[in-house]
Amino acid sequence: MPAFKAKVKAEVLKTVLDAVQTLVDEAKIQVAPEGLSLKAVDPAHVAMVDLSLGKGAFTEFHADDLEMGVDLDKLKDILKLASSQDEIGLEYKEDTHRLVFKIGHITRRMALVDTTNMGDPKVPNLNLPSKVTILAGELQQGIKASEAVSDHIALVAGDDSFELVADGDTDQVHLKLEGDDIVKIESPEESRSLFSLDYFSNMSKVVKGGDSITLNLGTDYPVKIEFDIAGGSGHITYLLAPRIESE
Amino acid sequence: MPAFKAKVKAEVLKTVLDAVQTLVDEAKIQVAPEGLSLKAVDPAHVAMVDLSLGKGAFTEFHADDLEMGVDLDKLKDILKLASSQDEIGLEYKEDTHRLVFKIGHITRRMALVDTTNMGDPKVPNLNLPSKVTILAGELQQGIKASEAVSDHIALVAGDDSFELVADGDTDQVHLKLEGDDIVKIESPEESRSLFSLDYFSNMSKVVKGGDSITLNLGTDYPVKIEFDIAGGSGHITYLLAPRIESE
Amino acid sequence: MPAFKAKVKAEVLKTVLDAVQTLVDEAKIQVAPEGLSLKAVDPAHVAMVDLSLGKGAFTEFHADDLEMGVDLDKLKDILKLASSQDEIGLEYKEDTHRLVFKIGHITRRMALVDTTNMGDPKVPNLNLPSKVTILAGELQQGIKASEAVSDHIALVAGDDSFELVADGDTDQVHLKLEGDDIVKIESPEESRSLFSLDYFSNMSKVVKGGDSITLNLGTDYPVKIEFDIAGGSGHITYLLAPRIESE
Repeated sequence: MPAFKAKVKAEVLKTVLDAVQTLVDEAKIQVAPEGLSLKAVDPAHVAMVDLSLGKGAFTEFHADDLEMGVDLDKLKDILKLASSQDEIGLEYKEDTHRLVFKIGHITRRMALVDTTNMGDPKVPNLNLPSKVTILAGELQQGIKASEAVSDHIALVAGDDSFELVADGDTDQVHLKLEGDDIVKIESPEESRSLFSLDYFSNMSKVVKGGDSITLNLGTDYPVKIEFDIAGGSGHITYLLAPRIESE
Repeated sequence: MPAFKAKVKAEVLKTVLDAVQTLVDEAKIQVAPEGLSLKAVDPAHVAMVDLSLGKGAFTEFHADDLEMGVDLDKLKDILKLASSQDEIGLEYKEDTHRLVFKIGHITRRMALVDTTNMGDPKVPNLNLPSKVTILAGELQQGIKASEAVSDHIALVAGDDSFELVADGDTDQVHLKLEGDDIVKIESPEESRSLFSLDYFSNMSKVVKGGDSITLNLGTDYPVKIEFDIAGGSGHITYLLAPRIESE
Repeated sequence: MPAFKAKVKAEVLKTVLDAVQTLVDEAKIQVAPEGLSLKAVDPAHVAMVDLSLGKGAFTEFHADDLEMGVDLDKLKDILKLASSQDEIGLEYKEDTHRLVFKIGHITRRMALVDTTNMGDPKVPNLNLPSKVTILAGELQQGIKASEAVSDHIALVAGDDSFELVADGDTDQVHLKLEGDDIVKIESPEESRSLFSLDYFSNMSKVVKGGDSITLNLGTDYPVKIEFDIAGGSGHITYLLAPRIESE
């Protein structure tokens, strides 16, 4: 009978939840001896998340291979019972198909959802020439400014610069980072693609303002957004399809 | 001409307001030389509050016997004018049937409401074998967890344990306190009754998380909820009727 | 080609925005070598604002004479991108009829609106015998108390006292300041006028609670409300028409 028993700080689960709930309402979590992982595609097939959370993110972790279907709204309610620094106990009960949470003196049994209709999305292999790492806070402010102006943005990686541009009917937003304001950049050629602001905004919000976020860009290609979670014990990759530049 | 004149910290009146507004929109306050008291039953006749506030809760208190009908929404608006630590002056004006509040440089005259149709509820004498005192914060967290699962809860007092159980269709919440996690318990027999979560939640919220709350329980009997207010100068007792356990 | 280029703390622009948005959605800002100014009348012609912001309120200021029509909702969105202490760069681009904001690494181009239909209101010359200066916080608390009671208030300046009175059907609010609770008063005769609470409340909210506000009053005459902004480098005057005292 496959087993899973772990303890983890509430904030780790909250970050995982935020990252996934941006795209889907239910998710299939893969449990394995080395940690958890999860892949999901949003209903409109515009974006994908690929998340891994190593056992190092947990204060205790014992697991066989198994999978759990989770209702994310329910998980959200449960995580509200804990403060960020509280430790949450997790235990999978195969007989009743429940995930049992221990928070303080509370035992909360949560029914799992059926995973038969949840696919196993394949992460496509993309050739994205430009890779730029910046502070998430800079990106988030550029997004906030853009929301008043347009519903889409262009991301542009130059030789030694990163730009976010939103063009409205009368107004414009232009975020330009270069030199010391970029953490790291490798961009042998200029890359420029257009994205839905809505999706991109939600994905960017998952990262703390002072943390780094890496954008992998091509021209009229998807963007691959990457960042670490749980102090480096976990990693999230988003893929977001480009919008066709209308003329 | 009966008189009432007093001064009190705003936070004391705010606690009284919260405690009573949970059940009714208007209330009849009994004023006497030793302090204030108030009894009220909610419109559905499911719950009752019995509140006393001794003159020790006031910084100044001079009163004859009289009664005042108070519109609690109006009182709420008035208390919003003061911070918790502000002192509020109170004076009853019989000639105009007004209660006059002094807050800072503001004089606020509030019309009283007619008390003829407000009954004088009798507090029933109940034989409740189990009495358990716990921290309100533990109870409040159990309630919060339960709200996602069911609209009613079971309260169970055992030999040396207190349990709150919410059973949903698929999910369950179980709060169990025993040993050092209980402030005080006297329970010669096991008591277990079922209650509406809504009512019980509102009553429990009146107490600060770090303060004690005492539950008097029987089996399929009302619960008597008791706690002190105003640093022990006041006391609140709620009675809440049980729900019939459906099968 | 007339030019305007300046730098200013975000909080200065936020105060200007709050002060003007109380009355209108769009405003015509006069730019001159000595600073900015603005006059506007609300759509109901009940109130007027006359604002001046000297170049001393800016950390950098270079301007020719020109005028800019500003959509205040748009300006509000832009100011949300900056914290109070952030410095905002401003530059007028005549060729594109844009005002360009620099906030951090973001360049935000905002289209200006047509000013042809915005009038040039004349500030009437009023003979208001009473002039009283008080702390805005006292006034704001009196207003807050009054809102539960009536939709209009009387302002009364006596020999050495200021009163705000709201009379409801059954309830009453009375704020009375005298002696040391008044910053400054010159009132050779008693002045008393009635005002719409709604307008007066919005105007009073622009001032910080600990700052002074000056009210110039007559009997059944408009009130002239004055206060400094930007540490004294700017000044705001409101005029509010009286309501006729109904009997």
